[in-house]
Amino acid sequence: MTGALGLATIDHTGIAVEEMEAALALYTERLGFAAVHREIVAEQGAEAAILVLGGARIELVAPLGAGAAAGSALARFLARRGPGLHHIAYRVEDIERALATLSAAGVALIDERPRRGVQGSRVAFLHPSACGGVLTELVEPATHT
Amino acid sequence: MTGALGLATIDHTGIAVEEMEAALALYTERLGFAAVHREIVAEQGAEAAILVLGGARIELVAPLGAGAAAGSALARFLARRGPGLHHIAYRVEDIERALATLSAAGVALIDERPRRGVQGSRVAFLHPSACGGVLTELVEPATHT
Repeated sequence: MTGALGLATIDHTGIAVEEMEAALALYTERLGFAAVHREIVAEQGAEAAILVLGGARIELVAPLGAGAAAGSALARFLARRGPGLHHIAYRVEDIERALATLSAAGVALIDERPRRGVQGSRVAFLHPSACGGVLTELVEPATHT
Repeated sequence: MTGALGLATIDHTGIAVEEMEAALALYTERLGFAAVHREIVAEQGAEAAILVLGGARIELVAPLGAGAAAGSALARFLARRGPGLHHIAYRVEDIERALATLSAAGVALIDERPRRGVQGSRVAFLHPSACGGVLTELVEPATHT
């Protein structure tokens, strides 16, 4: 089933951070990234920022204030492992087709159906156990690039 | 010091795996990557494989047989955290200049001087504490692309 999922390329590498402002300063002032987008993802209790360097993108994700985000998956990740690399996201043209292919192959999904991601995208996470311990996200961008 | 390090883009995202053959099957047969290079890095007690998908690259790193690799940093990572996202690597044009800039800024380095990486590159790792918990590698490719 070579390439059956229709993955086009890596959309971004996701990095969990404790505090967004300090992380943005590190990545823009020290490492030379440009911050291109910032968005609250209330349903996940998180804030996300997209940064670019050359043709590569990273996503910084930080938990919202302790009250709102204490029970979120991101807060649990930070409590267990600390800040650092969090997920890898692949760009797909048709996220429903990719999820149907995965489901038929018996792959463990966190999201059975796509949900709203940043910048109007639709996203779904696969379980790390399905991808060699890597939390894996599929992203169908709002407009195909 | 915006961009003072001269980072050009992300060279690859590094993924720690327990066993190379199974990981290669996952990434090529299921996810659609093409394996473009494979190399034993004896001094690190590891085997590395470079895979590409669209314009993006990942590096799978697996420990060599238990005898040779039991004390390696990679083996310790796997014992402590299990397989998964391991490092992020940035491409630089001049690795000596980048390391000198970092050292002058007081950034904690794992490698004070470049060492040999895969495909004839020269590489150096920064300490995760300097990069928000992310193990960070600088890569000066053998031939600039």
